[in-house]
Amino acid sequence: MAGTLSRQKVESLRDSQGLSVDDVCAHAYRHGTLEDTRLTPGCYDSFVERHIEQGPLLEQKKVPIGVVTAIAAPAALRIDLTGPGGHAGTVLMPDRHDPSLAAAEIMQAVERAALATQSRDTVATCGLVQVLPGAVNSIPREVRLEIDVRDIDGTRRDGVLAAIRTAAQAAAVRRGCGFTEQLINADPPATCGPHIVLAVEQAAAALGLPCQRMISRAYHDSLLMARVCPTAMIFVPSKDGISHRPDEYTAPGEIANGVRVLAGALAALAG
Amino acid sequence: MAGTLSRQKVESLRDSQGLSVDDVCAHAYRHGTLEDTRLTPGCYDSFVERHIEQGPLLEQKKVPIGVVTAIAAPAALRIDLTGPGGHAGTVLMPDRHDPSLAAAEIMQAVERAALATQSRDTVATCGLVQVLPGAVNSIPREVRLEIDVRDIDGTRRDGVLAAIRTAAQAAAVRRGCGFTEQLINADPPATCGPHIVLAVEQAAAALGLPCQRMISRAYHDSLLMARVCPTAMIFVPSKDGISHRPDEYTAPGEIANGVRVLAGALAALAG
Repeated sequence: MAGTLSRQKVESLRDSQGLSVDDVCAHAYRHGTLEDTRLTPGCYDSFVERHIEQGPLLEQKKVPIGVVTAIAAPAALRIDLTGPGGHAGTVLMPDRHDPSLAAAEIMQAVERAALATQSRDTVATCGLVQVLPGAVNSIPREVRLEIDVRDIDGTRRDGVLAAIRTAAQAAAVRRGCGFTEQLINADPPATCGPHIVLAVEQAAAALGLPCQRMISRAYHDSLLMARVCPTAMIFVPSKDGISHRPDEYTAPGEIANGVRVLAGALAALAG
Repeated sequence: MAGTLSRQKVESLRDSQGLSVDDVCAHAYRHGTLEDTRLTPGCYDSFVERHIEQGPLLEQKKVPIGVVTAIAAPAALRIDLTGPGGHAGTVLMPDRHDPSLAAAEIMQAVERAALATQSRDTVATCGLVQVLPGAVNSIPREVRLEIDVRDIDGTRRDGVLAAIRTAAQAAAVRRGCGFTEQLINADPPATCGPHIVLAVEQAAAALGLPCQRMISRAYHDSLLMARVCPTAMIFVPSKDGISHRPDEYTAPGEIANGVRVLAGALAALAG
């Protein structure tokens, strides 16, 4: 909808049920293709997104409302490693080219590259690790890694990504393993619209709710909507900062605070 | 059948279709339980097993027949690691306890422990690596590793296993991750019956087939049958030493050589 995917990319995508983007659009929006759902830049005056913080700051500081001034820039990299595999008993150690050992080195390089910036705003994670054939008595033949790198500074994030790619290729060469990589995405960071940030702060103040400026380290619709129109986000606390887990929780009263601030901000922006 | 499993262990096992050992025995042997299939020590004079080498030595040396004098001792260790997980964007690097990074260290420790014996007869492999939830934007919460260690020297193998367990526990503690381990098996190595080895060598010589003494680095029925009666094995070449892969191959003429040597050895042993 924000025009970030090429037609070629759209046609290559399938969900876990095998449905294409166009199949899903036809069902969800009663339009034939993704292009029909495209939002033209300037079609909205403002986009305001309410969300749980997904981090611990608001809860720790006992502040009920956060207003987001910038959204961190996420990038995702897929790395595929291959080797000849073989029997775990009969292929001697010097004759092996085990891609899982190259992967182990790369996983540690991901952490090292994030720590090397010495900024708390840099995070890097190897969230997906698939090892095939996955039998205790077989040397691995194929490994897929998917790596997530985020920073509010796009240049610094790209430096971390480059360090990981260099280390990964070196590990594969050193172990005589096949290596391919694919940059799944690398979106630019988004700066929020100052007039929306101000409207959120004024709406919170009118309700007597303390409000704190913060950055979002998670990926949000607003990151892509920022290409269409000015955006900002309203955060409410997350219990223990937990998210993407079954025990993610925000109390109903905290959610209601967010709704009231959203209503006040939208009324002011529409006024 | 060799009496190596306890009744408790037998009842805990299920195959991928959910069938118990007793279900499978009832179907395969028309007996009610595994105990009914039990072979009493001495019930056979000799057990001779023919197999592909699953390694490259016979092919490299152009020797058509191998006779096995000892079977390496395999052990398998399962390690489970846990951590709190969380969102890959919002949990900052110093706050993480990522079990996949402990696993990466353990995978490298497995290789290091095998190389440290400086014997070509020691092999160690981390063949199973499962990382959950397995999403690019989630910090891993659970990792299972299954590790295979083999050696013809049981004491040396147990030393490698101990080094891996120590390194694994240290990695988990260092990263603040949960750690449990389970020794799946640790069979003793088997020495083959000298009279059978001799019978195989004489059968090969009678057929004009060169024969080489060797050790088996793979797991075989003979390893367990060695508890019931004297055993030995006849090996034929494996193309490129490849096994446990779809391209495993031995030429029909090479297989026929093995059958003829087996027949000659059995005739001599029965004589």
